[in-house]
Amino acid sequence: MNYKFASRMDGIQASAIREILKYTVDPTVISFAAGNPAPEAFPVKMIEQITAEIMENNPIGALQYSISEGYTPLRNKLKEQVKTRYGIGEDFDELIITSGAQQAIELACKVMCNKGDTLICENPSFIGSLNAFKSYEVNLVGVDMDSDGIDLQKLEEAIKQNPNTKVLYLIPNFQNPSGRTMSFQKRQAVYEICKKNNIIIIEDNPYGELRFSGNHIPNIKSIDKDGLVIYCGSFSKILAPGLRVGFMCAPKEIISKVVVVKQVSDVHTNIISQLICDSFLERVDFDTHINQLCGIYKNKCNLMLENIKANLNPKIEFTQPQGGLFLWGTLPDNVNMMEFCKRAVENKVAVVPGSAFLPSEDYKTQSFRLNYSTPTDEQIIKGIEILGELTYEIM
Amino acid sequence: MNYKFASRMDGIQASAIREILKYTVDPTVISFAAGNPAPEAFPVKMIEQITAEIMENNPIGALQYSISEGYTPLRNKLKEQVKTRYGIGEDFDELIITSGAQQAIELACKVMCNKGDTLICENPSFIGSLNAFKSYEVNLVGVDMDSDGIDLQKLEEAIKQNPNTKVLYLIPNFQNPSGRTMSFQKRQAVYEICKKNNIIIIEDNPYGELRFSGNHIPNIKSIDKDGLVIYCGSFSKILAPGLRVGFMCAPKEIISKVVVVKQVSDVHTNIISQLICDSFLERVDFDTHINQLCGIYKNKCNLMLENIKANLNPKIEFTQPQGGLFLWGTLPDNVNMMEFCKRAVENKVAVVPGSAFLPSEDYKTQSFRLNYSTPTDEQIIKGIEILGELTYEIM
Repeated sequence: MNYKFASRMDGIQASAIREILKYTVDPTVISFAAGNPAPEAFPVKMIEQITAEIMENNPIGALQYSISEGYTPLRNKLKEQVKTRYGIGEDFDELIITSGAQQAIELACKVMCNKGDTLICENPSFIGSLNAFKSYEVNLVGVDMDSDGIDLQKLEEAIKQNPNTKVLYLIPNFQNPSGRTMSFQKRQAVYEICKKNNIIIIEDNPYGELRFSGNHIPNIKSIDKDGLVIYCGSFSKILAPGLRVGFMCAPKEIISKVVVVKQVSDVHTNIISQLICDSFLERVDFDTHINQLCGIYKNKCNLMLENIKANLNPKIEFTQPQGGLFLWGTLPDNVNMMEFCKRAVENKVAVVPGSAFLPSEDYKTQSFRLNYSTPTDEQIIKGIEILGELTYEIM
Repeated sequence: MNYKFASRMDGIQASAIREILKYTVDPTVISFAAGNPAPEAFPVKMIEQITAEIMENNPIGALQYSISEGYTPLRNKLKEQVKTRYGIGEDFDELIITSGAQQAIELACKVMCNKGDTLICENPSFIGSLNAFKSYEVNLVGVDMDSDGIDLQKLEEAIKQNPNTKVLYLIPNFQNPSGRTMSFQKRQAVYEICKKNNIIIIEDNPYGELRFSGNHIPNIKSIDKDGLVIYCGSFSKILAPGLRVGFMCAPKEIISKVVVVKQVSDVHTNIISQLICDSFLERVDFDTHINQLCGIYKNKCNLMLENIKANLNPKIEFTQPQGGLFLWGTLPDNVNMMEFCKRAVENKVAVVPGSAFLPSEDYKTQSFRLNYSTPTDEQIIKGIEILGELTYEIM
């Protein structure tokens, strides 16, 4: 049979990262290409105990159909948590549990955007979100970033050039892939620009808790008195990504639409994982747990940065993240970035070419992404040593 | 803020069933409105033991990110199972794990259908699937059924009237909501009609294993030598729906597209549930387990049918299902069906009005759905008694 697929399939391809990950099953390849949390960051004993108690005390609740909005006690705990930790949640807001923040982002786009509507994102940005947007055939426009986040002047120009702009997608904290954090001044300015232009902001904050230096910067949602911010959070980086539990906090009117598309997407998020997250929040000392995680990531980040300084050609510039999972390296203009990434994996070190994070093929980059959360300390040292040799060979 | 939602939201509303379920939290209401498996059908002890072993032996595997295609050992077991039990799976086919069959159906539509493409379904059909299709703004056309499945002549007429027909959606076994099963002759004829007209068949088979009388009828996918059938299966009715694990078996070319939209939907299906399903298939005596389930559903179905015969006005016609979870009752033309359903819930018995299963408001029905899997035996007896009184009051 000759298949005729929907036109939305023309614009999206399997994530380059996940494709690269396939090559990293080779155990001799050191992978800086993933975005996985450090396995040692999982509270394995606690989850084991929680799971046993769920199966002992509430097996039917853990196995039967549940409601699309999510497990009510977990929703209530999350509402309280984002309120007390971040000052998020007005009377007009509601919260829904999703199958990871990925689903929250995809459904936000599904309820808001028609084919051809303009959706503006940071350039570069998270490939999983960009592909979700492309799957709804939006006009995806990337706006360049400075070291403190999206370029405001270019943002205003992009909006002027695209009067049908419906949504602005941002990762303000420790952005993926660039590791950059948006300043509070810029968050306020971006909010005002969007308010003026009737644009919805999707604020994606998977890494927000993983700050290991500098001071907390209020989320855009915390200044949202007008109901234009859709805030997306996740348990993937603070508990475990395999659970696939995230959430969305947004105005009730938006959430009521999201519930409908959540129903047709997967009925509800798997309930065992929701019960695990609920019990985790109940019994964990959250600050102690987060401090522990941040300690792990701070050490790994510093180790990678120190070894980069000692081993890599200084012509490559790196971001200095204050949290999160990623470093962003930029090669001099005369070096072929794709060739560098290709030779790295041939030398058994996998990095992600920056081109994987561009809104479309019309954009160019000399950058590549390094992840420090997944590899062991030994792998970081060895891998950066190999990359170091390569950087002197090629320039 | 004044929200402008995507036009796709105009056509879909929250599932009427799930809305009705909200009223059934009142413990004095006997609910025949759900579609939940019987809680006593869950192998609780086995799942408890499996879960403990997973957390003991493979905690990192159960908590870390996994691949979008699904857990490889589970995929391999399912490929073998559909091959040996059903004769499903040619060299051109592949299998992907999804977050319930609901996701398989939604993603099948997403990769195949553009806005305006015609998708034909049985009339009535499963509301969750119909809403998924509507969320992609297809032209949804319902074709009436006979007691042995879709009306072939009307199907051919619908295809003639809609030359842009892309997909035919069918639930051949113990259809939801009608409880009807399609004959083998019709399955063959439908396949030939679709082959001739270049139409993809989505074969949804969540209830297939729950046959408690009559003989197995081969699935349409088992006669698919041309690669036009997308087969969707689920663990929801044979193990537990809260796990949210289903699968799709379809031509490789289609699966490769589905993997891409699966990535943007939820990255991958939660891995603990996948490991539970894998271990379940490994250690269960599948035939014994299925026989046990079918015993439970046969007894419940017979109990409800006997009590209907003894208590209800014989002017109401009922289907006699050979499996699955549902009875379909049809009122005489002079009775107001919605009024009947409303008075039933006022009398503390919830049933689902048939209108919830229609492709659009242009279709009419005198029918309603009864579920016998979720209520206890006592609730079945008491609830049917109450409905019985009502049927004599209103006609």
